[in-house]
Amino acid sequence: MSADNFTIGVDLGGTNLRIGAYVPPKGLLEAIQLRTRLSDGPGAVAKDICTAIDTLRNRYHEQFSLRGIGVGSPGPLELPAGVLRQPPNLPGWDNFGLRGAIERSVGIRISLQKDANVAALAELKLGRGKSLSVDSLCMLTLGTGVGGGIILHGKIWDGTSGMAGEVGHLNIWTEGGMACGCGSSGCLEPHASATGVRKAAEEQIARGTAPGLAALHARKPDFDARDVAGLARAGDSHAKAIFDKLGRSLGIGLASLVNVLNLPLYVIGGGLANAWDLFERPLFEELSKRSYVYRLTAMKTHIVTAELGPDAGLLGACLLPLYQNAQEH
Amino acid sequence: MSADNFTIGVDLGGTNLRIGAYVPPKGLLEAIQLRTRLSDGPGAVAKDICTAIDTLRNRYHEQFSLRGIGVGSPGPLELPAGVLRQPPNLPGWDNFGLRGAIERSVGIRISLQKDANVAALAELKLGRGKSLSVDSLCMLTLGTGVGGGIILHGKIWDGTSGMAGEVGHLNIWTEGGMACGCGSSGCLEPHASATGVRKAAEEQIARGTAPGLAALHARKPDFDARDVAGLARAGDSHAKAIFDKLGRSLGIGLASLVNVLNLPLYVIGGGLANAWDLFERPLFEELSKRSYVYRLTAMKTHIVTAELGPDAGLLGACLLPLYQNAQEH
Repeated sequence: MSADNFTIGVDLGGTNLRIGAYVPPKGLLEAIQLRTRLSDGPGAVAKDICTAIDTLRNRYHEQFSLRGIGVGSPGPLELPAGVLRQPPNLPGWDNFGLRGAIERSVGIRISLQKDANVAALAELKLGRGKSLSVDSLCMLTLGTGVGGGIILHGKIWDGTSGMAGEVGHLNIWTEGGMACGCGSSGCLEPHASATGVRKAAEEQIARGTAPGLAALHARKPDFDARDVAGLARAGDSHAKAIFDKLGRSLGIGLASLVNVLNLPLYVIGGGLANAWDLFERPLFEELSKRSYVYRLTAMKTHIVTAELGPDAGLLGACLLPLYQNAQEH
Repeated sequence: MSADNFTIGVDLGGTNLRIGAYVPPKGLLEAIQLRTRLSDGPGAVAKDICTAIDTLRNRYHEQFSLRGIGVGSPGPLELPAGVLRQPPNLPGWDNFGLRGAIERSVGIRISLQKDANVAALAELKLGRGKSLSVDSLCMLTLGTGVGGGIILHGKIWDGTSGMAGEVGHLNIWTEGGMACGCGSSGCLEPHASATGVRKAAEEQIARGTAPGLAALHARKPDFDARDVAGLARAGDSHAKAIFDKLGRSLGIGLASLVNVLNLPLYVIGGGLANAWDLFERPLFEELSKRSYVYRLTAMKTHIVTAELGPDAGLLGACLLPLYQNAQEH
């Protein structure tokens, strides 16, 4: 019997559910991947989570000692209660007590955070944060929506009720911005997400002034942000304009973040980070113009793409009990 | 000889310079008030500071033991170096090493922060933070400019180089906003400062459509934000519209702050906080509309005016060595 610790991490998503066993610093021992049974309701999904935790616990508890269980969940998530609040990616889960459902079954206090915070922790400890030797960062995840996580001196800053880091709802285009799922308009999310890119393309097609995008739509009705990026790289001016606006939106949002937080590192992750070459220039133009903290400080502010890929969520959940004890949510 | 500690605090402003001796929790023993001799250059002002520190140190060192010296300075201030970077309120001080100038004379490491952080600390420990029993807040000081300070779990969050908390440079009106001293436009500062109120009034007068404001100007060419507030309270619709826009601007900025920081308390201070009754309604309208964190969280987010008056800067400087040790800037 070894004295080595292991942790169990849960990456709960709207489509997939992954549960992993992790030994620091070696890495994942094993990962169980399931479909998230949304149609069967939150109770059934919580049961799947707990069954998988038990499986991994039983498989490794003789060899390693369980240090803790970390769970990353879609938000908004009220902490420390661990209750979901109208989560857009988990329809029907409003007011579901995720913490209670898991803790009643596993019998110990879990470390729980929204998924974007968990990915930010992974990026700090195993990705860009490690490469650049910093202990604070803000991560912006550009996916279906825009998620965010803030880590200060090695600890997740989750605010007074677990909802900090909602950088997708920074105000960008106060007047004339696109409607946002949060009820406001002009937020970063509709202007810098894959959904936003698709919607911007649809608007241009509807206006009848973007033949390249219209041809894409005719060829592939379910085209996505990646297809628009491909068109932009091939030189289509309307597709390029969409990423130009995305970069400007991100630069405006980053300027507010840099002026308020003055962090050493901002990491851009999520699928759209692959289009970095298409929006980097307007991003830095707006950031330089709008943030004197960025321009003035002698200490370099790093704005870079993420190092970790889609594993960040599962790795971060496994790291959670190591860097955030269960009392800290 | 008593074992009681005392601290010395310095509140450096563009006009006045105050140096106080403080015994916790009793309060100020004495405060020296001087004019800031800007025309004689930063060296002369630093000398005034050090002379006053010596005076207070000599006067109280037999009775009390010196716990530390705290200094609040106008920003931008690069920390830990303690060097000013193009400070708008201290012309001619660019690249002046304030920390070095004071430490060489007093012979000990000082605790140094920009003035807005120091006022936020005072408000946390002696003002609204104390009344509401919270350990985190963001303070927005609406004066000539708009300053800001963030305190997280009792510690000033000053960022990687001392420049965090610049809420006056949150982006509010991306297109068509007023020019800002920082080089951008549409920042919170030109829309929510006393200077901004005066400028907005001047614009209306120039347009020739605001007879009430024009009459005020004719009566009192050097009218200020307080005069515009008086006119608004007397029912003048153009003066009221200025505060309506100010409240909307603040609400939009607060929405971004609440979504990103999720703090329990945001405190509005500075002279313009006296016009709270004129901008409270539009502030909360915009905040509710634009921050789902504000709407969703079960934990109340307090948005209130400051409790402490103009003494906050001096009191905060005196508190600085008690809550932020000199190694933490």
